[in-house]
Amino acid sequence: MEKRVIGVTELALRDAHQSLMATRMALEDMQGACADIDAAGFWSVECWGGATFDACIRFLNEDPWERLRTFRKLMPQSRLQMLLRGQNLLGYRHYADDVVDAFVEKSAENGMDVYRVFDALNDVRNVQRSIAAVKRAGKHAQGTLCYTVSPLHTVQGYVQLARDLVDLGCDSLCLKDMAALLRPQPAYDIVKAIKTELGQQTRVHVHCHSTTGVTLVSLMKAIEAGADVVDTAISSLSLGPGHNPTESLVEMLEGTPYTTALDKERLSRVKDHFAAVRPRYTAFMSAITGVETEIFDSQIPGGMISNMESQLRQQGAGDRLKEVLAEVPRVREDAGYPPLVTPSSQIVGTQAVFNVLMGKYRVLTGEFADLALGYYGRNTGPVKQEVVLAAQAQARKDPITLRPADLIPNEFARLRDEAAALEGFGGSEEDVLTYAMFPGVAPGFFKTRPEGPKNVGKDPTQAEAERKAGAPGADALR
Amino acid sequence: MEKRVIGVTELALRDAHQSLMATRMALEDMQGACADIDAAGFWSVECWGGATFDACIRFLNEDPWERLRTFRKLMPQSRLQMLLRGQNLLGYRHYADDVVDAFVEKSAENGMDVYRVFDALNDVRNVQRSIAAVKRAGKHAQGTLCYTVSPLHTVQGYVQLARDLVDLGCDSLCLKDMAALLRPQPAYDIVKAIKTELGQQTRVHVHCHSTTGVTLVSLMKAIEAGADVVDTAISSLSLGPGHNPTESLVEMLEGTPYTTALDKERLSRVKDHFAAVRPRYTAFMSAITGVETEIFDSQIPGGMISNMESQLRQQGAGDRLKEVLAEVPRVREDAGYPPLVTPSSQIVGTQAVFNVLMGKYRVLTGEFADLALGYYGRNTGPVKQEVVLAAQAQARKDPITLRPADLIPNEFARLRDEAAALEGFGGSEEDVLTYAMFPGVAPGFFKTRPEGPKNVGKDPTQAEAERKAGAPGADALR
Ligand SMILES: [Co+2]
Ligand SMILES: [Co+2]
Repeated sequence: MEKRVIGVTELALRDAHQSLMATRMALEDMQGACADIDAAGFWSVECWGGATFDACIRFLNEDPWERLRTFRKLMPQSRLQMLLRGQNLLGYRHYADDVVDAFVEKSAENGMDVYRVFDALNDVRNVQRSIAAVKRAGKHAQGTLCYTVSPLHTVQGYVQLARDLVDLGCDSLCLKDMAALLRPQPAYDIVKAIKTELGQQTRVHVHCHSTTGVTLVSLMKAIEAGADVVDTAISSLSLGPGHNPTESLVEMLEGTPYTTALDKERLSRVKDHFAAVRPRYTAFMSAITGVETEIFDSQIPGGMISNMESQLRQQGAGDRLKEVLAEVPRVREDAGYPPLVTPSSQIVGTQAVFNVLMGKYRVLTGEFADLALGYYGRNTGPVKQEVVLAAQAQARKDPITLRPADLIPNEFARLRDEAAALEGFGGSEEDVLTYAMFPGVAPGFFKTRPEGPKNVGKDPTQAEAERKAGAPGADALR
Repeated sequence: MEKRVIGVTELALRDAHQSLMATRMALEDMQGACADIDAAGFWSVECWGGATFDACIRFLNEDPWERLRTFRKLMPQSRLQMLLRGQNLLGYRHYADDVVDAFVEKSAENGMDVYRVFDALNDVRNVQRSIAAVKRAGKHAQGTLCYTVSPLHTVQGYVQLARDLVDLGCDSLCLKDMAALLRPQPAYDIVKAIKTELGQQTRVHVHCHSTTGVTLVSLMKAIEAGADVVDTAISSLSLGPGHNPTESLVEMLEGTPYTTALDKERLSRVKDHFAAVRPRYTAFMSAITGVETEIFDSQIPGGMISNMESQLRQQGAGDRLKEVLAEVPRVREDAGYPPLVTPSSQIVGTQAVFNVLMGKYRVLTGEFADLALGYYGRNTGPVKQEVVLAAQAQARKDPITLRPADLIPNEFARLRDEAAALEGFGGSEEDVLTYAMFPGVAPGFFKTRPEGPKNVGKDPTQAEAERKAGAPGADALR
């Protein structure tokens, strides 16, 4: 029997260390694995975007563009893949279209092949421009369905979203489950429905985290339903809030009508490489190492809970977490059921804290008002009328229904001028884009860039000695 | 749609801590969870047998019979389940039939309900007597198929074994995967074939470890094929060399045609209980916390590799592990492909070491000679003629084909006399059985028993302080 070959996207170089060790891994700790990754037979190698750009300039004194060029050189046979937050690109606001165009063009020039483009609200208008730019650059545009659970999120809703993304010219779709909420049955149902209604030729990729312990089963079911590519991370950089292990996927398919084309010898070497690297980043490791299934009931991602806890403590109200946890689903419902992912998770969480401490919608955060009024994009369901009125009153602006970026005039020229005034600015468009993404961090980075990368990983023996000596800060991020 | 209810056996009180923390958990650290476990709706609660009996008297100064009675009292609504090594009972040799009868009778009297009976070689003659005794006591007899992979182990072979066990009167069957080798497809195929050929009413339980990361998928497939009950461990005592998390199983089935009858509130409390207990046993925790898939190729369980490594080091040949690892599959083949589980894994491993250090079959261990000559039972395939001849010559005995225990005359009376001579012997049949199981350990235990249980768990702060101070032995078992 001819087996169907399932493509695999390896996440070790981006999402895996972002999820497990706060995106702190230095390029020099990845380079040694690149030859094996390149030859292992992956459909693509995710290695850029997400929080890596920010971490590079904020913590590692690494030029992210140089990192991309290095990957390009070290993995000549591989499709390089990145995660792009639609009109936000890699920053934390909406950018004008000319910045979006420039970013996609420059990243393509520097070696990027596959762009996974998503919007936290699943508003296709927020990904439209970047997808068009990717197509213009002749690269692979992947449209994303952010998976979440709510009374308004249905299989048919995802199919409609998939259709809209295909209509934009996407080369493939990604069902993205950042919170490990995707159970096996909906994984099957959504992939099956997309394949049935949009055609078997519609490429579907599935991205799951492993936090809840069920999602390798979900990948199996997605494959049975026709998924073309699934995302995994090499075992030594897997599990916990990260992803399912690549080697387990390979073994899982043995004997089934499916197979991966992966070279197990190469995988074994990649595993060994990162098994040796991982202990260097213990200080940044997530405290979650096992499985957490609470999110299925609370709908609140673990990271969001710790954020709210620290906000409450700062207000001397550390004992009111339970009230806040009960308030979150109500706020989410009032806001039209946004998926809880960056930035909506923070926005909803902070508003829940405000509601508990100061009275229901007595004070709105600016971000929550923007969310309610449509400035982040179209919400899944209607926003509660009372919330819209409070937002209008407090933010002194009206609700919008147009694409938020339509309000932003072109800004690349201005950003270039601002960047050009900075000490250490190199003159390239890449540097302008670095400044555009992180205007608060880039100036410092441009200054210190000549000193070269700073590896924040630590020899485990040294780290242990510091820990024993009670060195302050060593455990700060645990 | 009427959903099919999948039974669940909770492993927290036996196999989970045996696999994760060398069976060291004290009864007092389990008692607090018993009410919630009892009310959570499990099909059964595994809580005795395996290595717990040995650990109780060797390390914890706990009377294992008292532990059983306590569980019986604390979990009045639950089926209590144990793991029994057939004619070996809980010890490390074959016992005479009268000891087998007495052991089953006394454990039933003390509260045991479900007996999972297995033989490392899958020789049904080695489980026949204990299964008959369980039936006679009016309890649930579960026959076991030890899963392994070899050219001789086929789906039809497992079906035949299942048939033989059903013919012995077993109330249910267990497909037992101690090495996490059971991939999803064979899990489906074996369960399906048993149900098809022996009838849908044949109860099939599936027991998997999680070491390789694929076996929750295998449980899903087994359920699709008709499995009635699956084994899991509460999340805070799960994963690594242990088992799949109970809560993940519950969530996995949401939306499918299957469901568990478990109470999530109760599970959450059990989880919290063991999350608090677990750090007390850090010193005994397995070093494996992630996923290890190497066993699919090497066929050698991790514990066996570390055994062989230490044997080699003792011989000053620590550099020859690679040769030994290559020798293991050859020795296993020559011995008729035994599953590699206690005690066959140790027997094959040590012989591989001998072969490498002293020349192929130049010197046989007594155990390997016994294995080759049939003294452990019938091997799956024929033993190589050269090996049989070497075993005969060195052990000066002939191969046997009868049931090994047929060579052992009744011995309970003699064991009672021996036990009666010991200081601290309490006069009960239970004490005779304790002595029978571990004649080297029981005398010391009887003496110290009046001092009461010794909890070897440690307050994490204290353990950390000792570790910082470099207390010897603190990390000995890591
Ligand atoms: Co992700
Ligand atoms: Co087990």
